[in-house]
Amino acid sequence: MTKRQPSGEDKLIERFFKPLASHPGALSLSDDAACFTPPAGHDLVLTADMIVAGVHFFADDPADSIAKKALRVNLSDLAAKGGEPIGALLAISFPGAIEEKWIAEFSRGLGEDCISFGCPLLGGDTTKTPGPLSISITAIGKVPSGKMVKRAGAKSGDLVVVSGTIGDGALGLRTVKGDPVLAQLSWDQLDFLKARYRVPEPRVALAPLLREYAHAAMDISDGLAGDLGKLANVSGVNARIETSKLPLSNAAYDALEIAPGYLKDILTGGDDYEVLAAIPEDRYPAFAEAAGKGGVPVSAIGSFRSGEGVTVQGPDNEELAFGQGSYSHF
Amino acid sequence: MTKRQPSGEDKLIERFFKPLASHPGALSLSDDAACFTPPAGHDLVLTADMIVAGVHFFADDPADSIAKKALRVNLSDLAAKGGEPIGALLAISFPGAIEEKWIAEFSRGLGEDCISFGCPLLGGDTTKTPGPLSISITAIGKVPSGKMVKRAGAKSGDLVVVSGTIGDGALGLRTVKGDPVLAQLSWDQLDFLKARYRVPEPRVALAPLLREYAHAAMDISDGLAGDLGKLANVSGVNARIETSKLPLSNAAYDALEIAPGYLKDILTGGDDYEVLAAIPEDRYPAFAEAAGKGGVPVSAIGSFRSGEGVTVQGPDNEELAFGQGSYSHF
Repeated sequence: MTKRQPSGEDKLIERFFKPLASHPGALSLSDDAACFTPPAGHDLVLTADMIVAGVHFFADDPADSIAKKALRVNLSDLAAKGGEPIGALLAISFPGAIEEKWIAEFSRGLGEDCISFGCPLLGGDTTKTPGPLSISITAIGKVPSGKMVKRAGAKSGDLVVVSGTIGDGALGLRTVKGDPVLAQLSWDQLDFLKARYRVPEPRVALAPLLREYAHAAMDISDGLAGDLGKLANVSGVNARIETSKLPLSNAAYDALEIAPGYLKDILTGGDDYEVLAAIPEDRYPAFAEAAGKGGVPVSAIGSFRSGEGVTVQGPDNEELAFGQGSYSHF
Repeated sequence: MTKRQPSGEDKLIERFFKPLASHPGALSLSDDAACFTPPAGHDLVLTADMIVAGVHFFADDPADSIAKKALRVNLSDLAAKGGEPIGALLAISFPGAIEEKWIAEFSRGLGEDCISFGCPLLGGDTTKTPGPLSISITAIGKVPSGKMVKRAGAKSGDLVVVSGTIGDGALGLRTVKGDPVLAQLSWDQLDFLKARYRVPEPRVALAPLLREYAHAAMDISDGLAGDLGKLANVSGVNARIETSKLPLSNAAYDALEIAPGYLKDILTGGDDYEVLAAIPEDRYPAFAEAAGKGGVPVSAIGSFRSGEGVTVQGPDNEELAFGQGSYSHF
């Protein structure tokens, strides 16, 4: 008789990932699939993002921050669609060299976010890879039936609204890479920018407000200019924004003082994970007040009008052109 | 004014993946997330599997077969849980060297399966990787409320039942690797084994029958002996099977004639993607008849009884021991 011994994979799941699977539908990760009863009167919002070491993060980034980024880029998508998280599935391929200590840190970081965002692990898969660490997360959210906020829907006269501050992620990437110009910033500012690159802040508090106020929304992951272009394009309108209205962190403001040319990074660099929304002008004050009460500052940076494409009015009122305008992996 | 040009990533999605996104909730892949209304009176079954070149398939396998395997390993999980497919999300990371022609073949294969299994693409993500091609699919299925078939639930007296034939995937892997012993088989047999390794056959026709007849079920992906051990373990019973009752393809039968030692591969090698189920003995004839009518042969290869672990009775009535008994990636 062969008594089955748990494999290394089973032990890893049991020890590090089962504690994150608090949803009853996860079946303690001891079955082949998750099973859950969808909430009545709701649609489900589904998004899947894969992040790869050397492409979306650095292999030597802290393990907990890698886990958080993998989940948060998905939660950012859900939030921008007006969705509130239900749970997530994690597929992860580990390079041979990854140690148990690393996995412990990874699962600790992921577990913190599963709790703080109410997004337990529902299931997933672990495997080895001869290549870089790759993490694919599918996040599931809910919206009241018919209320998902789409990319299409911006109308002429709506304001172009963004949450938080823009450009920190792109400047953070420069910082992590050791950009010598940005080295003139203070240590605190450099740490702030790195943290913004490594661990984005999904704007989950905005989800119900976007459902109530926004004609259209998306999250900014590939650069404001390009993502605004996508939203304007599917909505059939032109978007005009003014760089003087861009909400900048103190660190980004000081960076622009040192290197005005980094405005292009701020507008096109990506990794913002802020919300971009089209809000009717007359409803904007109420939206902004509610967002502020929810702890998320928002800024109107321009407006939509008839036409196509994106118009960016620069610091000296000149029109800026960006070509591609968006980060693309291809 | 900057008129936005579609990026390479956008063009790739538009050309190759949008045609697969026939579900209205996919929003033609032009939004950041999918949105669908869950079917009333149903639970959702969710599974995510990642396959990596050099681990789960060979980088030079035909592109359409890689796509099909990536989807089918997930559909196999759904089927074994009694779930019928609703849709899937695809996250794929391409090595730099992958050509458009390859992606065209990949999406053609995936599209064929999306149609034949009624599992349209709902969304996903494409990215580059400095490593091997990695594909993560999350499949979503439905079962009538409360009817998901679990791993736990096998009872003493139930029969151990498998679908199709066992061991072809493991022998197929040997064949693809150029095993000199198996080279004695006919070309047709070698092609058959390779195809079984490359493109598994998810037993979707069994889903409703498993809901009706099975006390417990799972799919066999990591080897019959090990997976049976998992099912017996969570069910709190012993499973006893006889190798003389194993359903073998002609190719596997001939392979065993040449190399009796390959019985171990057949029992532990994995990549079967057949269903393993615990069926009450008195209901087995009706189950087998219904499965046969649905085009899926099933075989009773032993029974569950009180105790623990797996007992395998070999060709000469001796008990076989397998140690780990299961393929593990760790």
